[in-house]
Amino acid sequence: MIRPAELIQRKRDGEELPSGEIRELVLGYARGEVPDYQMAAFCMAVFFRGMTPRETFALTEAMIASGETIDLGAALGRKVVDKHSTGGVGDKTSLSVGPIVAACGVPLGKMSGRGLGHTGGTLDKLESIPGFRTELTLDEFVATVRDVGVAIVGQTADLVPADKLLYALRDVTATVDQMSLIAASIMSKKLATGAQAIVLDVKVGDGGFMKTLEDARELAETMIALGREAGRTVVCLLTDMDQPLGAAVGNALEVREALATVRGQGPPDFTELVIDACAKLLALSDLGIDEAEGRRRAEAAVSDGTAEAAWNRWIAAQGGTADESALPSAPVVREVAAPADGVVTRLGAIAIGNAALHLGAGRRTKDDSIDHAVGVVCHAKRGDEVRAGDVLAEVHAHDDASAGEGVQAVLAAYELGRAPTAERGVLLEVVT
Amino acid sequence: MIRPAELIQRKRDGEELPSGEIRELVLGYARGEVPDYQMAAFCMAVFFRGMTPRETFALTEAMIASGETIDLGAALGRKVVDKHSTGGVGDKTSLSVGPIVAACGVPLGKMSGRGLGHTGGTLDKLESIPGFRTELTLDEFVATVRDVGVAIVGQTADLVPADKLLYALRDVTATVDQMSLIAASIMSKKLATGAQAIVLDVKVGDGGFMKTLEDARELAETMIALGREAGRTVVCLLTDMDQPLGAAVGNALEVREALATVRGQGPPDFTELVIDACAKLLALSDLGIDEAEGRRRAEAAVSDGTAEAAWNRWIAAQGGTADESALPSAPVVREVAAPADGVVTRLGAIAIGNAALHLGAGRRTKDDSIDHAVGVVCHAKRGDEVRAGDVLAEVHAHDDASAGEGVQAVLAAYELGRAPTAERGVLLEVVT
Repeated sequence: MIRPAELIQRKRDGEELPSGEIRELVLGYARGEVPDYQMAAFCMAVFFRGMTPRETFALTEAMIASGETIDLGAALGRKVVDKHSTGGVGDKTSLSVGPIVAACGVPLGKMSGRGLGHTGGTLDKLESIPGFRTELTLDEFVATVRDVGVAIVGQTADLVPADKLLYALRDVTATVDQMSLIAASIMSKKLATGAQAIVLDVKVGDGGFMKTLEDARELAETMIALGREAGRTVVCLLTDMDQPLGAAVGNALEVREALATVRGQGPPDFTELVIDACAKLLALSDLGIDEAEGRRRAEAAVSDGTAEAAWNRWIAAQGGTADESALPSAPVVREVAAPADGVVTRLGAIAIGNAALHLGAGRRTKDDSIDHAVGVVCHAKRGDEVRAGDVLAEVHAHDDASAGEGVQAVLAAYELGRAPTAERGVLLEVVT
Repeated sequence: MIRPAELIQRKRDGEELPSGEIRELVLGYARGEVPDYQMAAFCMAVFFRGMTPRETFALTEAMIASGETIDLGAALGRKVVDKHSTGGVGDKTSLSVGPIVAACGVPLGKMSGRGLGHTGGTLDKLESIPGFRTELTLDEFVATVRDVGVAIVGQTADLVPADKLLYALRDVTATVDQMSLIAASIMSKKLATGAQAIVLDVKVGDGGFMKTLEDARELAETMIALGREAGRTVVCLLTDMDQPLGAAVGNALEVREALATVRGQGPPDFTELVIDACAKLLALSDLGIDEAEGRRRAEAAVSDGTAEAAWNRWIAAQGGTADESALPSAPVVREVAAPADGVVTRLGAIAIGNAALHLGAGRRTKDDSIDHAVGVVCHAKRGDEVRAGDVLAEVHAHDDASAGEGVQAVLAAYELGRAPTAERGVLLEVVT
């Protein structure tokens, strides 16, 4: 039996811990035998000392071993793919990618978490669709992936329970932003659901978890190594999160934009990312095609309407109303006008995220409820030329007062300059 | 209201925290509003980032403010002195110093903790005296210091409760050995009892809290600065703890040695330290004498029997039997013979402390009970020449089996060499 205080001390002093001891610590924590305060001290020691790749893999495996696992591939008798993002403002990518790859004949099964703070969560977005059920049973989940080709559900309580406990603890002990802990948290959930090929979208910039390309690369490499150890193929897209992704930020607004994109009517940056992710997933699938062919098929599914048909089947299969007009709308919509001529030199992702949060689109604490209708739509993005009075964005609010505050906040998120800055696309780098 | 997670993060990132926020954190922790896990993460962040002198003082003040304080000086209408050691093997200094300075007319009031691990605690030693009460009421404590000149009692629950909580937490989260946390823990208890002049004995070496002279100096300077901020005079003796202090290690054995020293019959190294400490305390007292005169008076009190008389009054005042023969004795006493001719080049303090611990003289966990009779008496100390068969030490045990193990352990603690090593005295340095 390990002595947690001794393990903390050895990690604190820079020692590499044996896999078996990390496993005992994590499983002991999940069973409630190792108290929160020892795990908190351990996480802070890890924050300062880091973890070796071997330790990180041991942590990931132990978290998986703390609960049940699902072998989706075995249940379907074929290769299943998954797509995950580290989270960003306006990131509704999975909503569009799921039905497009399903339309191309590749099953995608995804378990997702709820959002906290400005990033929002996939489940919250889906729950803005009337009737949509994110809490399927395991059997329903497997059946939906098999029959419809796509299902996105909430993580069951039995899946990686150690991660739930650990994440909640890290959130209140300033130990969230540590590379190994982040990688283990993400990968344990991906590996526990049994998708054989995974495309990870690592957001980089002001509104992302990783602030620099260097950090994003390190996280990507850590996660790819964890996937490789577990016999899975992982590809990481490092994508821009210095400005919101697409135009819509806010739950129902994002669902509308995701659907528009599935129909080929999405904003250019978001469409680019969706098609990139689909092409990668199709190339990793059991279709036996390369990425160029994957891209061609994804674009075809969008243009010939099969992707929209898959969207409709999927939403209906999870109990939702596919009718777009059933989505909630905010009673007050206020336009934000450009105060002068110029070029958008900056559109702060966190600033827009916080504006949406204050409108009611996100949660400040776990117990906050969400207003699915509200949010922000950013019509002008970085690099766009505008004239004074042009509509930069729309604020969707539940009353005049919050709309007024929202307009001020959105305006402050925009920087207008004279000359266009060197533009970068949404996809910054691919790490394999 | 502070947000603990944010405070942890700022400390983690190397920021100096405002005094008011440290105070809120500590008082919130003492009231049970800040949970253990946040305090554990905070302590680990402090372990890596340290605390500035201002932060350390704020922590100390907040810990004092978490409970009641006692102004001994005001209660007695005169200057009261205190003596404290960071703890070491065979350290019974306070037991001898108290009655000697009392015999010289200077009141000494000390609140002490219990020992855990190999160092033992002053209270445990005193409790080997039949009838001795360490749990006096506050009124009894003050009255005993006033009437007898010396009292040594357990810390009341109301005194610095934040330190009790924090120490217990640090003990199980590998955050004990951090300079500011150690200094604040020691000094908060000293400052809360209102002694105006304090002699601190900082143990240096294998069996002490501080392993190097550099660390001991840093701790001494930190504590002196804390005392100065609070308007107290603090002198630190840095003393050797590479070997046990004196000969006796174990509760009743140490009481006997302390009494022998009060009578002028103690081992040379221990006697040297006791007289040094007394001389410093008398020079800091309201007698208006210098250290040389303090030394003269302390030596006189020992040689003329007034110190022993003060010992007897003190033990009786706290309910104990001053009769030495009433102290418990171990049923089995086994001699440890030198295996060869040579010079003692090393006598490991921790090794002897652990031997005593295994004999039953200390506690491995808070709930262990103590056998007051058992222990080790080291007749040969570092630098002593011995011949094969000479008695190096005695093991006092409760049965033959543990005596046998004790002999082996004590033997292993001795290193015999050819040539005497350069000897150093017990007092290494004085920091003022």
